[in-house]
Amino acid sequence: MGSWVIEAHLPVSFKIKNSPNIFSPSNNDLLECGSQGAGSRRLVIIDRNICKYYLADVEKYFMTNKVDIHIVAIDATEADKNLNTLLIILHEMENFGVLRRQEPIIAIGGGVLLDIVGLASGLYRRGVPYIRVPTTLVGLIDASVGVKTGINFDVRRNRLGGYYAPVAAYLDVAFLNTLPALEISSGFGEILKMAVIKDSILFSLLERNSMKFANKNFLDCEELDEILNRAVDGMVSELNDNLWEKDLKRVVDFGHTFSPTIEMRSIEDRAYKNLTHGQAVTLDVIFSSIISMRRNLLSRKDIIRIMSVARSLDLPTNHELFVDPLALIESLNDTQRHRDGNQNLPIPIGIGNYIFINDLSFEEIKLAANDLSNFNRSFGNGLIS
Amino acid sequence: MGSWVIEAHLPVSFKIKNSPNIFSPSNNDLLECGSQGAGSRRLVIIDRNICKYYLADVEKYFMTNKVDIHIVAIDATEADKNLNTLLIILHEMENFGVLRRQEPIIAIGGGVLLDIVGLASGLYRRGVPYIRVPTTLVGLIDASVGVKTGINFDVRRNRLGGYYAPVAAYLDVAFLNTLPALEISSGFGEILKMAVIKDSILFSLLERNSMKFANKNFLDCEELDEILNRAVDGMVSELNDNLWEKDLKRVVDFGHTFSPTIEMRSIEDRAYKNLTHGQAVTLDVIFSSIISMRRNLLSRKDIIRIMSVARSLDLPTNHELFVDPLALIESLNDTQRHRDGNQNLPIPIGIGNYIFINDLSFEEIKLAANDLSNFNRSFGNGLIS
Repeated sequence: MGSWVIEAHLPVSFKIKNSPNIFSPSNNDLLECGSQGAGSRRLVIIDRNICKYYLADVEKYFMTNKVDIHIVAIDATEADKNLNTLLIILHEMENFGVLRRQEPIIAIGGGVLLDIVGLASGLYRRGVPYIRVPTTLVGLIDASVGVKTGINFDVRRNRLGGYYAPVAAYLDVAFLNTLPALEISSGFGEILKMAVIKDSILFSLLERNSMKFANKNFLDCEELDEILNRAVDGMVSELNDNLWEKDLKRVVDFGHTFSPTIEMRSIEDRAYKNLTHGQAVTLDVIFSSIISMRRNLLSRKDIIRIMSVARSLDLPTNHELFVDPLALIESLNDTQRHRDGNQNLPIPIGIGNYIFINDLSFEEIKLAANDLSNFNRSFGNGLIS
Repeated sequence: MGSWVIEAHLPVSFKIKNSPNIFSPSNNDLLECGSQGAGSRRLVIIDRNICKYYLADVEKYFMTNKVDIHIVAIDATEADKNLNTLLIILHEMENFGVLRRQEPIIAIGGGVLLDIVGLASGLYRRGVPYIRVPTTLVGLIDASVGVKTGINFDVRRNRLGGYYAPVAAYLDVAFLNTLPALEISSGFGEILKMAVIKDSILFSLLERNSMKFANKNFLDCEELDEILNRAVDGMVSELNDNLWEKDLKRVVDFGHTFSPTIEMRSIEDRAYKNLTHGQAVTLDVIFSSIISMRRNLLSRKDIIRIMSVARSLDLPTNHELFVDPLALIESLNDTQRHRDGNQNLPIPIGIGNYIFINDLSFEEIKLAANDLSNFNRSFGNGLIS
């Protein structure tokens, strides 16, 4: 027999669009990218928690626009980010009989929901279109921007998934008004990550507003729009060049080296305080920054600035598993397999710049964990603040 | 907040390479695309049925080349093409701790195995590399060529899946020597499809060799290589332009309009004779050709030629579900959803050319089913041969 070479390019293009009053019947965004008018249909997958605020609006929106909808409310905590929830959605798609192109799935919820619906949309009929409507802060600045989908598997975070772009992501900041303070705080964890590793102006914005944040009035901040925009800008610029992660040195992986396994364990094992994703990312940001400090690439003062901003955002600076060298090395080892055997650990050089290191030792992890304890003890004793 | 547009191109490139004596330790093909030398590892997923012929060769191959392997033998009939088998493979990947890039999964088996392992490889860590080694005729000329992966779901054929290219597909025709006659015959169903719809020279080759085939000595045919090459050429030329099926008018969907639902039902429901994939495709080829004949686009003589070649290849020309108009329309309706609401039914104009139709009526299906019965009755009575 002969030999052949297959060569092709998959073009991917989608918009992330500001869409105020998204459920106002005169806002056409949610009708786009599919059939419109008589006989048109949509399958809407929505987080059960936000139904109480928005279900009536969703129903009215599509009724006014003469689109038949089937609404599926699902639980979408991190613990629900599993095969079971994926299968529930896939069965709903099959029962609805989703067409291959003209009936985009509409996903309304936080990062977990968007990730699962994205995976289901990518798998069903080898891919049907879907639209992302983030309702949380993480969703707005992180999950809505990328093309990654996923579920947890075998107690491993996002172990199964894909790269499957939505046809559009529509951002309505008003969702934050009904978001619990814990989830807003958690979302700021991803913003803090972006600030420390690649955007010193964003860090200054966070620092400047830290007094306001400290009262948990996160949304009173006049500079919120600028903060959110800079966070999305940071993600978008990273993604345009590396949408499929061909390059496994990813600056936005900052905060995601030690955290994945620890976050999962904090959820699975009741012996530990449960961490949200943003909280786990924050602890990783601080821990990785301490590694940088130990290498004289970041000042002690900057560590205190980072920890202070985290505290003002009601984010944790301490956790049993982040001062446990064995938990940290186990997490690093799994992440290393994900980075094809390399550590590729991004650490900050000052605030807003970075390098990748590949020579982190267990000894260094033990010392950094000890430093983290000491910093927190000093905070507790009022020695620093 | 602002608005953004993400635009990117995913380049995909892989080779389909003739690789005689693939398990000969001096053949390097299976070592490529990953780490080599001391400490290198591979996870090998192999069809249980072919272990008896090749397991020792596989073990010797990698041992000689100093690669540590873990071999997973799985059952891979059409009935095994399900979520359960997918999960078995995913758990094996997790237990093995597959690295993200340098340990390509090696998949050795027929179309079903290659489809499932492809899906698992696409999902694990959002994609790890894999190599396709087809061991069946369908595998050689169809599953090895494309990028489609999948499993059946909810009694729907290939309802879940993706487009995930292997890093390479290696073809060794010698596998056919240990393949049961039924599977060779079944593989010829896909070749017959290609011949009737777009390659009249391939059809002539099949016709010219039909006497040899009739003794089930499929491999004695001197023109076998040319037949296989033309079949792969036909697939490759289709794929280069439409790898992700952006265009839902696909000539290689010929034979795949009525067959998917009927094939699945023949497997699930014991009231019906079980159809292999190639058998179901053949019946669809004949049925779609009769539709063409009824529209005066194909001669009665050509129908008899097609059915005669099918019979010489030990392929069926009749089945209860293909003369059952309700089963046929149900299958068409599901396929139509897969083609975004359009029939996009390819039918031959003469042998080797085609058009797509979108106006097939239930009345026409009933008449064509009746014609199929009559053709088979004439064959049975010796009125045509």
